[in-house]
Amino acid sequence: MQKEDLLRCHEKIRPFIHRTPVMTSHLLNELAGAELFFKCENLQRMGAFKMRGGVHAALNLSPDQQQRGVVTHSSGNFAQALALAAKTLGIKAYIVMPSNAPAVKKRAVEAYGGMITECAPTLQAREAAASKIQQEKGAAFLHPYDDHEVILGQGTAALELLEDHPDLNYLIAPVGGGGLISGTALAAHFFGKNCQTIGAEPFAVDDAYRSLQSGKIESNASTDTIADGLKTNLGEKTFPLIQQHVQKIIRVEESEIVAAMRLIWERMKLVVEPSGAVPFAALLREKANFYQKKVGVILSGGNVDLSNLPF
Amino acid sequence: MQKEDLLRCHEKIRPFIHRTPVMTSHLLNELAGAELFFKCENLQRMGAFKMRGGVHAALNLSPDQQQRGVVTHSSGNFAQALALAAKTLGIKAYIVMPSNAPAVKKRAVEAYGGMITECAPTLQAREAAASKIQQEKGAAFLHPYDDHEVILGQGTAALELLEDHPDLNYLIAPVGGGGLISGTALAAHFFGKNCQTIGAEPFAVDDAYRSLQSGKIESNASTDTIADGLKTNLGEKTFPLIQQHVQKIIRVEESEIVAAMRLIWERMKLVVEPSGAVPFAALLREKANFYQKKVGVILSGGNVDLSNLPF
Repeated sequence: MQKEDLLRCHEKIRPFIHRTPVMTSHLLNELAGAELFFKCENLQRMGAFKMRGGVHAALNLSPDQQQRGVVTHSSGNFAQALALAAKTLGIKAYIVMPSNAPAVKKRAVEAYGGMITECAPTLQAREAAASKIQQEKGAAFLHPYDDHEVILGQGTAALELLEDHPDLNYLIAPVGGGGLISGTALAAHFFGKNCQTIGAEPFAVDDAYRSLQSGKIESNASTDTIADGLKTNLGEKTFPLIQQHVQKIIRVEESEIVAAMRLIWERMKLVVEPSGAVPFAALLREKANFYQKKVGVILSGGNVDLSNLPF
Repeated sequence: MQKEDLLRCHEKIRPFIHRTPVMTSHLLNELAGAELFFKCENLQRMGAFKMRGGVHAALNLSPDQQQRGVVTHSSGNFAQALALAAKTLGIKAYIVMPSNAPAVKKRAVEAYGGMITECAPTLQAREAAASKIQQEKGAAFLHPYDDHEVILGQGTAALELLEDHPDLNYLIAPVGGGGLISGTALAAHFFGKNCQTIGAEPFAVDDAYRSLQSGKIESNASTDTIADGLKTNLGEKTFPLIQQHVQKIIRVEESEIVAAMRLIWERMKLVVEPSGAVPFAALLREKANFYQKKVGVILSGGNVDLSNLPF
């Protein structure tokens, strides 16, 4: 993927996404000892960056494919993104969701007209259910993160942030399946001025950290984290990009995620979901490394279940 | 007060306040059947519009008065506003707070360097405690709302909103002591194009509604509402302005406040406090009256205690 691919993707999806605001906070700057620029993807359509990749992938299907519909499996945000993208383009969306996905995300998929199939909360069950729909309906399978069109789409958040603030020293994004972090790293590589990309993930699901150490895609023995968007493993397409372009991965404790989330809610008055607070938690954990630097922080999403808050 | 007073006030306080963003939501527009423009005073410095009036009142003191400090009584947001305004201008702030004020607001006053005196949660006890400090320290008493400088300051939120969207048909703001609603009504009167100002308050503390009916300042027998910023009665200066310039007051149930607050959190990803959700609740309650109109909604503040949420 080249510089031009990312720019072309941005042009293509622009009519269907929000250019989200970049917010700052004197108080959080003081607390972090750095100058922070929060890219508010919680204010993106359907409440998360995944709208970008979903729209881009759906736009790249042939008219014939579009007519038969799309299918994906997702624990939440990509499900909503594809449902809304499909609705926008007038095509059918079949969404496979694990039974433990947050209720608020299921309701949103339904509200966007997505047709939900529930399955067991394992990657195997998700893939099997999606594959069945693919065969029965002729729907085009779109992977939530391991897809170059999706990766490019997710990278446009960082592209916009760098357009607004070209001299960032660091970009920090959360790492789940790796779609956002690899897109972010591509944007930093092509458009930053020596801008380093840092990944952030919970200790409880530190598969990306371990994958970078071992040189192969590792999985998580358990997925017991509040950051429900970050439970998935890296993919065959995201992992090499991360190896090449992500400088470091910082891991955080569950309590640090909740504390960071609370600071963003209390001080910035922004609703972010736990996964979206992980990068800020990572920055606070290793704040000495970011002292007096300009740091772009991707607030990846805001789809939290208000009936089930950690405070 | 004239048009020019409001413009001069805005010029004066501009360096010390944020020009807050105006946000929109397709989903909430659909739900309301109107075109809504949310003025995000929850993103104002210290998290509420009261910073505007606090700064303006403090700026208008003589250097001699400033040296002896300022004192006020407030259930929360004006306390923080005056503490932060005083800190910004390098003067002492003595803050009388009722014992039932939210903990998060007390912590914030302390963080801004305000010196807190606790008192019983009655207007009498608040006034007595403030008066004592006034006498002992020579501090200048600043009333949280019944003060023309404060009213002008609060009106600058609506002034900015009308600068951004000059053709609003309605402005809706919450009614507590009446500082915000009377300032808003002045702005609509001077700068709107036939823009009507609507007040919104809980049924539980509907003193403003009853005051407009009886023609004299009424009080509340009890103050059992989740909207902790709206418990106070109107003042001698705010009441006549409301009589003259506010077209209507809509009252809402407690459950409607919580539902409106939840919609704003879930759909706009914005943290607003219960008082700040009252105008949107009022609009939804009487949505037929706003059908296809352009409505400015003042999201007055976002200082909510996350440990004590209604959902």
